[in-house]
Amino acid sequence: MNTSRERVLRYWQAANARDWQAFAELLAEQIVYEVPQTRERVRGRANYVEFNRTWPGLWRADIQQLVANDHQAVSVIAFHVDGTTETGISVFDFDGDGRIARITDHWPVPYAPPARACDCIERY
Amino acid sequence: MNTSRERVLRYWQAANARDWQAFAELLAEQIVYEVPQTRERVRGRANYVEFNRTWPGLWRADIQQLVANDHQAVSVIAFHVDGTTETGISVFDFDGDGRIARITDHWPVPYAPPARACDCIERY
Repeated sequence: MNTSRERVLRYWQAANARDWQAFAELLAEQIVYEVPQTRERVRGRANYVEFNRTWPGLWRADIQQLVANDHQAVSVIAFHVDGTTETGISVFDFDGDGRIARITDHWPVPYAPPARACDCIERY
Repeated sequence: MNTSRERVLRYWQAANARDWQAFAELLAEQIVYEVPQTRERVRGRANYVEFNRTWPGLWRADIQQLVANDHQAVSVIAFHVDGTTETGISVFDFDGDGRIARITDHWPVPYAPPARACDCIERY
């Protein structure tokens, strides 16, 4: 089968194309998806496809960074939806068949920089 | 030299131990550190050590997930500081000498779950 890197590329390609057949084929039947920030969890391939299929808005994910090894991968995406852009960070764990067994999703948002104790920081 | 995984373990060990000599040895001289959420940037080894050395509070990082390959790594940490725990996600890029050339840091915080269009989600 393909490498972890190729599987994550295919995952986002399938999501962007709304190709739920190709998307589902990448997932383990017992996939667990979690968002630690909201403590939401989705269990199982059918539920997880439905969760994505019904995600509201006109959205598209562009991969910005992808770090992968044999069993895990992390993608950082720019998630464009209805004129706004969010950052999504997904940690993927693969099972022995190369299917996605677990996804842990993080959604960091902008915040005002705190006071810092050193004079060593610039803004960009 | 050590693997990317070992270097990241050592990075957090040195930080927790406030061993700034060991910490500095892991960094490229021209390291660039960025926080996309605040658009803060720190350039250079001396500045980056100072940035960490002066981080306020009694803090300690516990690695929760670590995904590494030859040139990159991502750590997810529980950052304990003054009785609270934050989540930090750091993307590390290594140079040809195995030193950390770039760190991109993300700090996701809890938020209320949005309305969802499918009946496929549980809370934990």
